[in-house]
Amino acid sequence: MLAQPATALRWPRLLLTGAAGGLGRELRPRLRRYCDVLRLSDIAVLEPAGEGEEVVQLDLADADGVRSLLTGVDAVVHLGGVSTEQPWAAILGANIVGAYNLYEAARRQGVRRIVFASSNHVMGFWRQDEVVDAQSLPRPDGLYGLSKAFGEDLARLYWDKHGIETVALRIGSSFPEPRDRRMLKTWLSYDDLERLVVASLSAPVVGWSVVYGISDNSAAFYDNRLARHLGYRPRDSADVFRDRIEARQPVLDPNDPATIYQGGAFVRTGPIE
Amino acid sequence: MLAQPATALRWPRLLLTGAAGGLGRELRPRLRRYCDVLRLSDIAVLEPAGEGEEVVQLDLADADGVRSLLTGVDAVVHLGGVSTEQPWAAILGANIVGAYNLYEAARRQGVRRIVFASSNHVMGFWRQDEVVDAQSLPRPDGLYGLSKAFGEDLARLYWDKHGIETVALRIGSSFPEPRDRRMLKTWLSYDDLERLVVASLSAPVVGWSVVYGISDNSAAFYDNRLARHLGYRPRDSADVFRDRIEARQPVLDPNDPATIYQGGAFVRTGPIE
Amino acid sequence: MLAQPATALRWPRLLLTGAAGGLGRELRPRLRRYCDVLRLSDIAVLEPAGEGEEVVQLDLADADGVRSLLTGVDAVVHLGGVSTEQPWAAILGANIVGAYNLYEAARRQGVRRIVFASSNHVMGFWRQDEVVDAQSLPRPDGLYGLSKAFGEDLARLYWDKHGIETVALRIGSSFPEPRDRRMLKTWLSYDDLERLVVASLSAPVVGWSVVYGISDNSAAFYDNRLARHLGYRPRDSADVFRDRIEARQPVLDPNDPATIYQGGAFVRTGPIE
Amino acid sequence: MLAQPATALRWPRLLLTGAAGGLGRELRPRLRRYCDVLRLSDIAVLEPAGEGEEVVQLDLADADGVRSLLTGVDAVVHLGGVSTEQPWAAILGANIVGAYNLYEAARRQGVRRIVFASSNHVMGFWRQDEVVDAQSLPRPDGLYGLSKAFGEDLARLYWDKHGIETVALRIGSSFPEPRDRRMLKTWLSYDDLERLVVASLSAPVVGWSVVYGISDNSAAFYDNRLARHLGYRPRDSADVFRDRIEARQPVLDPNDPATIYQGGAFVRTGPIE
Amino acid sequence: MLAQPATALRWPRLLLTGAAGGLGRELRPRLRRYCDVLRLSDIAVLEPAGEGEEVVQLDLADADGVRSLLTGVDAVVHLGGVSTEQPWAAILGANIVGAYNLYEAARRQGVRRIVFASSNHVMGFWRQDEVVDAQSLPRPDGLYGLSKAFGEDLARLYWDKHGIETVALRIGSSFPEPRDRRMLKTWLSYDDLERLVVASLSAPVVGWSVVYGISDNSAAFYDNRLARHLGYRPRDSADVFRDRIEARQPVLDPNDPATIYQGGAFVRTGPIE
Amino acid sequence: MLAQPATALRWPRLLLTGAAGGLGRELRPRLRRYCDVLRLSDIAVLEPAGEGEEVVQLDLADADGVRSLLTGVDAVVHLGGVSTEQPWAAILGANIVGAYNLYEAARRQGVRRIVFASSNHVMGFWRQDEVVDAQSLPRPDGLYGLSKAFGEDLARLYWDKHGIETVALRIGSSFPEPRDRRMLKTWLSYDDLERLVVASLSAPVVGWSVVYGISDNSAAFYDNRLARHLGYRPRDSADVFRDRIEARQPVLDPNDPATIYQGGAFVRTGPIE
Repeated sequence: MLAQPATALRWPRLLLTGAAGGLGRELRPRLRRYCDVLRLSDIAVLEPAGEGEEVVQLDLADADGVRSLLTGVDAVVHLGGVSTEQPWAAILGANIVGAYNLYEAARRQGVRRIVFASSNHVMGFWRQDEVVDAQSLPRPDGLYGLSKAFGEDLARLYWDKHGIETVALRIGSSFPEPRDRRMLKTWLSYDDLERLVVASLSAPVVGWSVVYGISDNSAAFYDNRLARHLGYRPRDSADVFRDRIEARQPVLDPNDPATIYQGGAFVRTGPIE
Repeated sequence: MLAQPATALRWPRLLLTGAAGGLGRELRPRLRRYCDVLRLSDIAVLEPAGEGEEVVQLDLADADGVRSLLTGVDAVVHLGGVSTEQPWAAILGANIVGAYNLYEAARRQGVRRIVFASSNHVMGFWRQDEVVDAQSLPRPDGLYGLSKAFGEDLARLYWDKHGIETVALRIGSSFPEPRDRRMLKTWLSYDDLERLVVASLSAPVVGWSVVYGISDNSAAFYDNRLARHLGYRPRDSADVFRDRIEARQPVLDPNDPATIYQGGAFVRTGPIE
Repeated sequence: MLAQPATALRWPRLLLTGAAGGLGRELRPRLRRYCDVLRLSDIAVLEPAGEGEEVVQLDLADADGVRSLLTGVDAVVHLGGVSTEQPWAAILGANIVGAYNLYEAARRQGVRRIVFASSNHVMGFWRQDEVVDAQSLPRPDGLYGLSKAFGEDLARLYWDKHGIETVALRIGSSFPEPRDRRMLKTWLSYDDLERLVVASLSAPVVGWSVVYGISDNSAAFYDNRLARHLGYRPRDSADVFRDRIEARQPVLDPNDPATIYQGGAFVRTGPIE
Repeated sequence: MLAQPATALRWPRLLLTGAAGGLGRELRPRLRRYCDVLRLSDIAVLEPAGEGEEVVQLDLADADGVRSLLTGVDAVVHLGGVSTEQPWAAILGANIVGAYNLYEAARRQGVRRIVFASSNHVMGFWRQDEVVDAQSLPRPDGLYGLSKAFGEDLARLYWDKHGIETVALRIGSSFPEPRDRRMLKTWLSYDDLERLVVASLSAPVVGWSVVYGISDNSAAFYDNRLARHLGYRPRDSADVFRDRIEARQPVLDPNDPATIYQGGAFVRTGPIE
Repeated sequence: MLAQPATALRWPRLLLTGAAGGLGRELRPRLRRYCDVLRLSDIAVLEPAGEGEEVVQLDLADADGVRSLLTGVDAVVHLGGVSTEQPWAAILGANIVGAYNLYEAARRQGVRRIVFASSNHVMGFWRQDEVVDAQSLPRPDGLYGLSKAFGEDLARLYWDKHGIETVALRIGSSFPEPRDRRMLKTWLSYDDLERLVVASLSAPVVGWSVVYGISDNSAAFYDNRLARHLGYRPRDSADVFRDRIEARQPVLDPNDPATIYQGGAFVRTGPIE
Repeated sequence: MLAQPATALRWPRLLLTGAAGGLGRELRPRLRRYCDVLRLSDIAVLEPAGEGEEVVQLDLADADGVRSLLTGVDAVVHLGGVSTEQPWAAILGANIVGAYNLYEAARRQGVRRIVFASSNHVMGFWRQDEVVDAQSLPRPDGLYGLSKAFGEDLARLYWDKHGIETVALRIGSSFPEPRDRRMLKTWLSYDDLERLVVASLSAPVVGWSVVYGISDNSAAFYDNRLARHLGYRPRDSADVFRDRIEARQPVLDPNDPATIYQGGAFVRTGPIE
């Protein structure tokens, strides 16, 4: 948690979906500081509501439930859905139907902004020696990445047609610390994740914006210059872990697609049944 | 039907999905000339199989059925699914689940190329005074356009990961003749449609290509220079209908989103329930 | 004059400024066919009004006069002002103050579209071996070109802020036929000029568009792909004059700036006093 | 004033126009350190000349006066003219005629470089969620921005034709500290202004360069990578004022054009009479 | 040979190198019409000089010989050197040393323009489903293509530094007719070759220009819009041979690099010893 | 030498060519830390081999010798050849034939990566007020720069065709400290050179990458955003020498090509005989 809140702004009610997941649990106490009430939802059981919290257990595939969920909400931080490669049925329900339900509920409830957890896997079939930016075309590396590309396009539709703003965070690898050579490029510290989410919530105008969610890693294959208006400035860096990681994983197979492509091991996964 | 076939190439078995729809009925006799066997499918009843035809009635949401459908097929011309703005459930089943089933079946059956009927509605929220090309980002104008954007990304995944080639045809307005001012820009004659489909089938290498499906209309807002390798060269033009159309529809409301945006009336449609 | 009008559309009242100039006299009878009333203005004496014509002698530097001039007008074809390199005072009055007066009058009178005769001299300091398009930055070759760059920016302001549409025609060299080697690149036939003006008037949406005004000359240094939505398609070509011109002017000094730069002889002209 | 001068270079005589204005008064003592003689001009009364200073009261619309003013000058820092939205007559005289007089005088007097105070309002109708750079086309937000776009094009002409170099500073908001949410994006500290002006004076070659005049603000909508050759590196940042400003101005109307567009409140101003 | 010469211009003395090769023999009688004297050179024996011809047998690796060869020459059409994949020593002598000798001789002899026969093999490792233009980076497919990339860079140096103009013709496949599926994309008829060479000689300013040498083939992977200033407009097309070729070569192996990459079979060739 | 090695990775055997040159002598002890054995070669006499070193005196024009040299090597840092403007014969042997010999030997010996010392002189005829990146076309400023452009294209061929990776370092000016005004832009400290070489060796995937070799100089005319994946982050800066250099060299002739173009004095050098 940042020593100082990243903004003095404060929202009456924020909604955090996927609050029981890895990043959700990490963001829960952090976002608490930026709002009067933090509503939390997940398909899994959540820790009981603390002060200023509201807890809702809910499947995003339940359209009516999602509509209720968004009542009285100022903005949504949408981490809900699956975040790994999964069978089509799981992706379809949670990430495609779920995303649709969320945006449609936002439209009906008058929610104006969604911070959408997209993924680096939207771009996973670009090579690691290519640098992509917010105007590069999607090249998903699996059904998960494909569902996030769908979510981004859905968000663009709801912005162009209904005026609902989205910041799509193409999150790299958000963990306590980088675990392998690829994460030296894609790592996003939890503190930088907080900075990024708060920047996305507090920027005066975002329309439909795409930003890569990484810390200040020297060797990233992402170029965020087109998202500068969001004001996200990372303060951490995977670089400090470089020696340890390289000692642990000195050799990469240069013919392994997981070495070659941005998506890493995801590019090797076939459809899961 | 073209007086001369557009290529001397001939496929053992082509599959045409959506063969009972408007364009499907138009393409059925045309494609018949380019293959030994033309397999036809639709969710609706089809005309009985003629010589060299095979007819299959099938819902694309039926994964097993689609897998069988692709047995022994060399290439697919995929018109199936819905092609107008519809309620989410209809779009989801036919165009999202259906497209997934098709590509997954192609992967399992070893089909190498799909000519995918995408739509101008993938780009519907670009303005009519902007010219877009194959590298412009999608801006769908409704759930239908969104589902086609999904199909294009799905196709890119199956190309990058599984080597299945796709030509995505962002078809404008394919009718016997243009019906309104917008179609002077977006019209695709049936003969040019045939040329385009045959070019897409016969180009030696297509990888994942995007092409706008229009005739040689002077006032298009599309730039096909990045698809030149496909060898599509339209021979018809909406221009010859200009006087008649302008006489019939002399005035357009300049404040109407349907006048302003490329998607025309689709941009005005809210979600349908 | 085109054998067939270029459109079936017809405006109640068009205004043609600069109607006594070279291009003005050429366009007067041509535009007459596209409207019920053609209002004509110039600082010089005009031929008396024919049927369906209104004639106004006026200095564009007269703001009140211009405001009256635009009463009841549907659209303006603005050729007024000076069209050659002149002393600053002349350029300032006619092309800078004059353009401002015109747009400000349009705003007050509710005129929605202006076809603005800009000039190739906005781009005159690009080299003749460079190809420019509508997104290349201006490089005017003199005060005249500079004033036209001003007019284009003014038009952009009035579009962005007040919703008045403009097509800026960067006219090459519009004469009965090309006169020299450079005009083999920049020539615009009178018939193509008519096609271009009518396309600019009749395109449903133009916002702020820039188009190079040339015939179908093989050796142009202009790329109009970003203006395709206007629907301008030239039918004439300077190519048919090539032999005659090259016989007459076989040698060009390769060190002469007039040979090197797009603006031709204009790039050599110093300020005129 | 910087503790250390930003360069060891020193000019025999610099001219600062607009020296009685806000930025002029700020730059006067700062520039004094970089030259033997600092000539100062303004239409308003100036503080009496100190040591190494020359003071000239002058209207930039006075061509002869401006010509005299530039005698013996090495380089000009041109802040003169109006710097807010004003009636057309004021803009015309000070910023259009004035800029012409300045460049024409520079040509006659052999002055080789002008640091031209342009403005963010040249780009004011780009959205705040778009990032612009030195090759983005101008979209002025009013007559003031339009006059600065004129000045930039004039400068390009004098560079291309007469070899007079210009650095156009598209200054954001230069005040002691940022005053509102928008200035968190556009603020330029006085020290950074000094760095920027000195970089522009001392870069060996500038030709015609455009640079956005902002401090190192995280949330800017400007990309200065194309101006890197100038060597401007800001050391201050609006970020340190973020909490205070956001506490003071927590809510922005998302439908207000001043929130949406880069030009802020300028985009709302109609012509002033 | 064109029925009508492509230009009325006529040069006192043109030099054609490589005049004994396939294209050289084809161009010899064609170029004869555009000059008073046609000097011809080759390392091989040439047909004896006809009227208005001069014949020189010469190895381009002979620097002194090349210097003499260029005496009194107005412009060079440089076909000399090897034009197929060859061992390094052969490429080095003929195409690298030879090109250097030619440009250095041009510099010393004051020759101002060279039409340089480059090759599509400069770009051979771009894919056939990618469209390249004059600003795409080189990706040579062998030593031959590499030597032509060297020649283009050499030409750029001699333009930037010494003012010698070059048009680099990236010639596709110039034969009496296309021989295989790839040549449906890359074919250049002899008449179009003549048009292209004459356009390159007669364009008033070319600086350093790159143009793809192809006829008007529908399915090319080249975009010549950046070379429009040259005025090359092909009149032939490989399309008329399509049926015959496709009947003869109905199947291409989609995994063969010669199918996938623009360079065709050249991409498969290893170094030749 | 960096206090801390820039990576924990360690190669069994690295080859450093040109090890007796200025940069070679600087890198020799530095690279020693990153490998078990450092093989060193030069055409000149080298210091005797220390522990873990192997020394080979060799002319790169000797193909067989180079082939032996690459036996058992993991990666090459190729500084060999001439690094100043020289007569053609010297450039040809050392940099053209030498580079070919090196890559061909790498292919035969199975060496997978080469860090190729290219040069800023590949881009020397871009202006100093233009900012170039890895996709800008080469504009060499002499035979030396031309030979380096050749080497880069050769490297691309060996990557595309034979899978040998290259990082081309377009080194600016690597000296103990900057010596003149231009080096304030192009300087590369020895420590940053070490960082750059090590980054190029240790990046998991480089394919064919181009990076400008400069320290963190504020006023560079290079943009390295497309090489970010390499992970090179300079820590030194020429800025700290600015005062001293500017005091020593206060005046530059603005008409001197060495002031105007990126290549500095190299652009003035004619062919050396």
